[in-house]
Amino acid sequence: MRLSQFHLATVKEVPAEAELVSHKLMLRAGMIRKLAAGLYTWSPLGLRVLRKVETVVREEMDRAGAIEMLMPTIQPRELWEETGRWEKFGGQLLKIADRKAQEFCYAPTAEEVITDFARQELKSYKQLPVNFYQIQTKFRDEIRPRFGVMRAREFLMKDAYSFHLGQESLAQTYQAMYDAYGRIFTRLGLKFRAVQADTGAIGGNASHEFQVIAESGEDAIAFSDGSDYAANVEKAEALAPTVARPAPSIPLVRVDTPRQKTIDDVSAFLKVSPQQCVKTLLLKGREGLVALCLRGDHEINEVKAGKLAELPGESVLASEEEILAAVGARPGSLGPVGLPDHIPVIVDRSAAVLADFVCGGNLDGTHYTGANWERDARVTRIEDIRQVVAGDPSPDGRGTLQLARGIEVGHVFQLGAKYAEALNATVLDDQGKAQVMLMGCYGIGVSRIVAAAIEQRHDDAGIRWPEAMAPWRVAVCMINPKGLPEVTAAAEALYAQLAERGIEVVFDDRGLRPGSMFADMELIGIPHRVVVSERGVAAGTLEYRARDEADSRQLGIDELFALLA
Amino acid sequence: MRLSQFHLATVKEVPAEAELVSHKLMLRAGMIRKLAAGLYTWSPLGLRVLRKVETVVREEMDRAGAIEMLMPTIQPRELWEETGRWEKFGGQLLKIADRKAQEFCYAPTAEEVITDFARQELKSYKQLPVNFYQIQTKFRDEIRPRFGVMRAREFLMKDAYSFHLGQESLAQTYQAMYDAYGRIFTRLGLKFRAVQADTGAIGGNASHEFQVIAESGEDAIAFSDGSDYAANVEKAEALAPTVARPAPSIPLVRVDTPRQKTIDDVSAFLKVSPQQCVKTLLLKGREGLVALCLRGDHEINEVKAGKLAELPGESVLASEEEILAAVGARPGSLGPVGLPDHIPVIVDRSAAVLADFVCGGNLDGTHYTGANWERDARVTRIEDIRQVVAGDPSPDGRGTLQLARGIEVGHVFQLGAKYAEALNATVLDDQGKAQVMLMGCYGIGVSRIVAAAIEQRHDDAGIRWPEAMAPWRVAVCMINPKGLPEVTAAAEALYAQLAERGIEVVFDDRGLRPGSMFADMELIGIPHRVVVSERGVAAGTLEYRARDEADSRQLGIDELFALLA
Repeated sequence: MRLSQFHLATVKEVPAEAELVSHKLMLRAGMIRKLAAGLYTWSPLGLRVLRKVETVVREEMDRAGAIEMLMPTIQPRELWEETGRWEKFGGQLLKIADRKAQEFCYAPTAEEVITDFARQELKSYKQLPVNFYQIQTKFRDEIRPRFGVMRAREFLMKDAYSFHLGQESLAQTYQAMYDAYGRIFTRLGLKFRAVQADTGAIGGNASHEFQVIAESGEDAIAFSDGSDYAANVEKAEALAPTVARPAPSIPLVRVDTPRQKTIDDVSAFLKVSPQQCVKTLLLKGREGLVALCLRGDHEINEVKAGKLAELPGESVLASEEEILAAVGARPGSLGPVGLPDHIPVIVDRSAAVLADFVCGGNLDGTHYTGANWERDARVTRIEDIRQVVAGDPSPDGRGTLQLARGIEVGHVFQLGAKYAEALNATVLDDQGKAQVMLMGCYGIGVSRIVAAAIEQRHDDAGIRWPEAMAPWRVAVCMINPKGLPEVTAAAEALYAQLAERGIEVVFDDRGLRPGSMFADMELIGIPHRVVVSERGVAAGTLEYRARDEADSRQLGIDELFALLA
Repeated sequence: MRLSQFHLATVKEVPAEAELVSHKLMLRAGMIRKLAAGLYTWSPLGLRVLRKVETVVREEMDRAGAIEMLMPTIQPRELWEETGRWEKFGGQLLKIADRKAQEFCYAPTAEEVITDFARQELKSYKQLPVNFYQIQTKFRDEIRPRFGVMRAREFLMKDAYSFHLGQESLAQTYQAMYDAYGRIFTRLGLKFRAVQADTGAIGGNASHEFQVIAESGEDAIAFSDGSDYAANVEKAEALAPTVARPAPSIPLVRVDTPRQKTIDDVSAFLKVSPQQCVKTLLLKGREGLVALCLRGDHEINEVKAGKLAELPGESVLASEEEILAAVGARPGSLGPVGLPDHIPVIVDRSAAVLADFVCGGNLDGTHYTGANWERDARVTRIEDIRQVVAGDPSPDGRGTLQLARGIEVGHVFQLGAKYAEALNATVLDDQGKAQVMLMGCYGIGVSRIVAAAIEQRHDDAGIRWPEAMAPWRVAVCMINPKGLPEVTAAAEALYAQLAERGIEVVFDDRGLRPGSMFADMELIGIPHRVVVSERGVAAGTLEYRARDEADSRQLGIDELFALLA
């Protein structure tokens, strides 16, 4: 592509409306333009990148045996009523009435329509398993659309749905999709993790999120440095310490700790490490208050705590008044020693192996030293209720955990019979008996990947595309202020030779000053830049610079081809 | 693709809901499935064809220098208010309110959004001309959606919009698009015509429709057998006869023609040809009745008649009562001789060169013979008011006209300043002065082409795809009821060899009976079928049949490859 024949419209100013780096850079590079809240036009430059992602997704879905089709974006209310989601989906469902007052929605997902398709098309177990997918525009009427295409209302999604007779078949396709997703993000050149996800309200089957690693990510994830283990931090198990609890060696002593309320305060004041302290939280339980005890350097994991039988499914701290009334002390001085008998004491596995620890004195301005479980403090039960931290052993026994932030770009899910049951989607089994099908669903946020990649790969000058996502792999920049025919000829020849080799190349023939041209190519993230200039033509070399390298170097043309091969 | 790994779901029954052949065959082939009125799911088979069309359209748009981008399907009311189309577009515009009661529409077309994009992105004449396009889902809330994807509500459209400073540049891009459209429909293997279209309400610039020729087409078109001339019949000019009107040679005689009311009646009764008769229609004019006289074998062209100054923009026949009151005779006996002076007599060019003709007597049950213009009947004006007929000379002077019916699948249009003016889309010219841009727009109904192709190419057995649109070019059908390993091996080898040569091939490995297998392959329209069977393997030949040939023949493998190359 010659840039003179393309529409490139980069912007110098940092757009005020954008918070995320990816949003800023996509606007500055002219990849997208806002039409209305959460609605973006993809410019020619932006679309080139979007299509790269789409193509990789399609190729790997096909390779994994999924079959592409296309469902309407506008879907009738009746089908969504059959699953109860017309109401349950909530405000994100964009509802529409046509000229005859028939009601429809703009599909945010397509379980209803594909299951309706399947119940009409699939009659026999012989047609199973089958895995249908589409790459189609979706709409979610976000209350607060923001972050550009990261959380847009209209977006491009790949959604796949598989149908099975039996869990084993579902598990196989699930694994095939899991593997395909791995290939997709690997081919796209992104650092990612497949993390175990909480299956939440839908129920107990397997689910993995694919997270692109980026500091700005909304999700915290934990992964092992010694295995493939990765999980959303909400779900990552903190293993029980392998050491046994030492026997008590010192007496319990109450000490004055005036105005020392946090673990940091107390550990500094008493000159003990936070790891030797126990912090105690009082939560509102199903029946009265519940005490949770954690090691001083650990934080509570609210998802894990929410699953305790004593708690009502969520973690709500008791108020200062409630705590004062029950214990006689304020939150900064709580501890497990001498808590009233009606308060269950749930102790985290890591806190449970401490001996001779420091904890609150249940009397304002005091703490205990030399506290010990059983001897001094009651233990109702030992549980895993904390967030994992970097350095924890991996739950699969291999390696230690590291923490990172991630952007969810894919999700695979074993749905089971939920939708097929609601829509009565059955096939005849080999005995001629109607059986409800099992389903899996597998989503990828195609447009979101573009933003996620930028979050992961950028610097002060702009985007650093991985090769597979770059709008073009190579930029040929011509510097020819004197209009020398030999320079033009050399640039044209290089452009033609690269194109002939099937290398995607953009020829910057706009005649800009070198500074502007280079700034553009860096901003839009072209991985390889080659400059053709009077000096280079005279010397018979090309000035090459990789987007990821600080300096340029002189290459012969064969070296360039070898480098790009 | 192995059919056992694909989802093919053909149906034997002819669906009752479908009127058009293409709709019936697409349902029977399992290409589409109705979700709701005017909303269709494209099955894997259907999508393969749709993507073929999309790919050809994209390649030719790119080749013609158009630049692909992507606009949202959901567009804000405010923009549509700027052009006045929020109201003017009418009931086809699907209007939507989001959760904050902001109003949007589902785009039926994108002039507003692209012009808004252009007014922000384009600043200087140096950025012109530029031609943006997208291939994107559209929605038109048809009152009576029917004919399957031929007139669906949600459909896939390629829409392009070009921007210019000056008419010459617009005309150049218009021509480039015209040429690209020709390449597209030629590559798709369709018989088509680019016809001059009436520019209608939008105004006087150039416009062409691209019509796929098919008997079931909604549009009548006329085209020359000696040139590229083609036009919608509504617009095709009927040239004036080159012969002069002969002098009268016989006297005017009133004859009794009891119960003879139509031209056919009268010409048979009086033993004269319809070409020697004049038929007279009385229409409601702006001021009283207007008489239109045509040769007996010609029909009125209502679009041409509607442009007469005497008529109110449309052609409405006077009632029998009005005619009786004005003339004293009923419609079956009307003629130009002796009409009251207040009725203008507009004579078609072909009727105006007749002498000694037959016409109604303006007295029920009578006609005149030997009637002549001027001598016997007043002529207010001579005009072109008839439909062209096959055999008419082409208006461009080369060849004669033929008639056909067509399905509109593309439209190119010089919009001029209409939208750019409404949205104030200007660029600075080379004098630094703001100038409103000129625009062209260029649409192709991508999903409609699929149906139109079937209308043009089908037989009793099913679809006859052109090679470029077929889901696969070749079907390898394995007949192996005994499960002989050498037959399986031969079929597998042939499948592999075809695939290696880059030939799109489907391998029917479902193990069906030959009749069912062949019926499926004919129904879904695969151009080339090769049978691998025990007998063929023994003889070292393949049984080949082209979809368009009645009989199969034996080929060696090299002959097959040569034929497909």
